[in-house]
Amino acid sequence: MTRKVLIVGANGLLGSGAVTALADRFEIITASRSDEISVDLTNPKSIADMYTKVGKVDAVICATGKVPFKSITELTLADYESGIDDKVLGQVELVRQGIDFVNDGGSFTLTTGILARAAIPTGAVASLANGALESFVLAAAIELPRGIRINAVSPSVLVEAPGYHSYFPGFEQVTLAAVGVAYAQSVEGSGTGKIIKVG
Amino acid sequence: MTRKVLIVGANGLLGSGAVTALADRFEIITASRSDEISVDLTNPKSIADMYTKVGKVDAVICATGKVPFKSITELTLADYESGIDDKVLGQVELVRQGIDFVNDGGSFTLTTGILARAAIPTGAVASLANGALESFVLAAAIELPRGIRINAVSPSVLVEAPGYHSYFPGFEQVTLAAVGVAYAQSVEGSGTGKIIKVG
Repeated sequence: MTRKVLIVGANGLLGSGAVTALADRFEIITASRSDEISVDLTNPKSIADMYTKVGKVDAVICATGKVPFKSITELTLADYESGIDDKVLGQVELVRQGIDFVNDGGSFTLTTGILARAAIPTGAVASLANGALESFVLAAAIELPRGIRINAVSPSVLVEAPGYHSYFPGFEQVTLAAVGVAYAQSVEGSGTGKIIKVG
Repeated sequence: MTRKVLIVGANGLLGSGAVTALADRFEIITASRSDEISVDLTNPKSIADMYTKVGKVDAVICATGKVPFKSITELTLADYESGIDDKVLGQVELVRQGIDFVNDGGSFTLTTGILARAAIPTGAVASLANGALESFVLAAAIELPRGIRINAVSPSVLVEAPGYHSYFPGFEQVTLAAVGVAYAQSVEGSGTGKIIKVG
């Protein structure tokens, strides 16, 4: 039986890398704000509805998460809250609600980023969100039931996203194909609680 | 002129370690829910009122932050939100609002913990909160104006807190005196963007 992978945010650049890396070996189900299976990760009810529609899967990959970029003296409390609600709590809620929908031995793969471990100007909310998710992955890994695994893919800036290059001077640029391999490693490997760094 | 340190949560165990480590060299101002200078870090207005009362300081230390401890299958979205509001946004807001009240070359010191980098059962919210703050510190350090520094003190379980020992089997137990030295290193040293690990 072909194993099923639910990819949230498959129409984004990172999500498309996951699809490309896995499509020849898995049945891919995609969900996003604009997919036929629609989901808004800032709305817990919409996550519940998505899982009810999709049913059981072997893996869930989340490749979404928006955060505001502003200087530390311009960021408002509302900016921090919006980044946390979208990138952090959206992915956490996808896990929390998804446990009952992932088959025994299946996996969750979250997407974080190099700003968990490096800094750029205007990146405070991004760093906070990525750091939160990476430590959450460590913690969740030891408690998930039925052999379910959880990892994070944590890429540097993408070669294929030139619009971001000037924000990451001196950072290694990584290919979408390399990030795809990282998603595949999380889904098909045996690791859990791993931060799979790309770059 | 004696330099001033504002310690939020000085009546807690960690805060008392900071007071002991610094009291002979600094004027210590304390604030907490129950101090004469009262502050509730989950209430942004109360942080503003505190800074208005206290005025300019050379260092701010935050030694507070509550998070719920429950198994990953029992945690609710509200549990994650409450831990984030208290430990993460409380400390972030103390920095955000405090920038204008810290003298040139002064510092912020946040308190995180070993669960940023290690896992215990029921620790998912604690890990998430500590990881968020540690990456925030990295990011904020490169942007704070006027030479203001920021670090995090990240201790393992305390010798002096035996009630927690059974939750941290196999973890190094560290003394409150060692944690006090870490607070002093952050306030009196030159480092910024540092996670000062104790244990």
